[in-house]
Amino acid sequence: MNSDIAIVLVEPQSPGNIGMACRAMKNMGFTQLRLVNGCDRFHPEALKFAVAARDLLESATLYPDLASALADCRLTVGTTRRHGKYRQEILPPQEVASRIKGQASADCRAAIVFGREDNGLTTEELSLCRWHATIPTSSEYGSLNLAQSVLLFCYELQKAGATPANEQIQDMAASSEMETLFEHLHGCMKKIGFLNEQNPDHIMRSLRRIFFRASLNSREVTVLRGMLTQIDWASSGFDGRKRS
Amino acid sequence: MNSDIAIVLVEPQSPGNIGMACRAMKNMGFTQLRLVNGCDRFHPEALKFAVAARDLLESATLYPDLASALADCRLTVGTTRRHGKYRQEILPPQEVASRIKGQASADCRAAIVFGREDNGLTTEELSLCRWHATIPTSSEYGSLNLAQSVLLFCYELQKAGATPANEQIQDMAASSEMETLFEHLHGCMKKIGFLNEQNPDHIMRSLRRIFFRASLNSREVTVLRGMLTQIDWASSGFDGRKRS
Repeated sequence: MNSDIAIVLVEPQSPGNIGMACRAMKNMGFTQLRLVNGCDRFHPEALKFAVAARDLLESATLYPDLASALADCRLTVGTTRRHGKYRQEILPPQEVASRIKGQASADCRAAIVFGREDNGLTTEELSLCRWHATIPTSSEYGSLNLAQSVLLFCYELQKAGATPANEQIQDMAASSEMETLFEHLHGCMKKIGFLNEQNPDHIMRSLRRIFFRASLNSREVTVLRGMLTQIDWASSGFDGRKRS
Repeated sequence: MNSDIAIVLVEPQSPGNIGMACRAMKNMGFTQLRLVNGCDRFHPEALKFAVAARDLLESATLYPDLASALADCRLTVGTTRRHGKYRQEILPPQEVASRIKGQASADCRAAIVFGREDNGLTTEELSLCRWHATIPTSSEYGSLNLAQSVLLFCYELQKAGATPANEQIQDMAASSEMETLFEHLHGCMKKIGFLNEQNPDHIMRSLRRIFFRASLNSREVTVLRGMLTQIDWASSGFDGRKRS
């Protein structure tokens, strides 16, 4: 599916940026690079910054203008830093991702288009794109590096695909294990004289809150019970006095 | 508020990456850079890639080790590519953002920590951090450029905007309090013979994970240190034998 989403760079001027863009694409699982009138993609700087993504430089396809680069694409997104110059809705990257994800296919290719490092896309080039998008930045310094911009769109696209399973919750110790731990803790704390005799529950409530919040798994309950057993053993000669 | 979130680079090896990281930070409205044993931040490559973010290079603060860089931070996040080596929850950037955003303040500083380009953070450095995080990448090519990683976390933080304050987090113990607790715990566990002599760090890492996950506040640190003092006292006649 990611192979149905192309990254299009229009007249990139720095070979290093092409290389870095390839690396960013590959990091996020994208492989289709289209270059419109780019500088030399096999320049040593490009190869250096591509690191292990040289294959993307090699498989990139070249076009004489943006219209031909987009000819087989339906879902086209032009990126811009200019806001509201025309009355066109400008989407943030996550909205681009949610519109494209699950839609792109061999019959419905998508393209995210990035302009020149210094001047971006022309108004005419933007007008070739169905949607326009921008990355929200600090008002003080809004000029993102080209490869950084490519990364952020690829990142949002791959993120839109996956929904994380919450393994931590899957894994938590059962209530019965926790209660056995608390019983052991109570006995041990009582033995070493740590519980206030007037109000032993006060400290135990604090300790329960701490260990519940830690979302212990079974292995960790075992580690803590081992610790308590060793405290019991180490204090076996102790008479229960509070430390003065 | 963004000024209460520090980006910490541990032993960055490439001046260009420091420069690019500064640019990415400034693009997203972040200004606090902390360097632990970094290479020359005024190297021409650093200045070149920082472009209009040279001021961040100049205002960066330098530290001899990670512990001192984090001493005044409560919300510490260590980034890693290693997954599931221990049962520690590994957060994606957006989850880091939602935990930090609206929480960080002058009294509750946050730090996102990035390791060396080639080797990341050591296990010991990660263990200084309350939370661990990773950027989901393609299984084929997971090695992100350092400045790209910095960008993604800053991007998610700025995107998260203001979220309602979580009192639990406001209240969390500072890194220095946690480290004093762990030192006390280590001494106490060693004394009662609970640490494996061959590999004492193994158990300590488990205990660190448990107590970090519990988001202890200062009062709870005091309760636990009181408990340790009482264990010390109760086991004062103990000779350090493991229970047979």
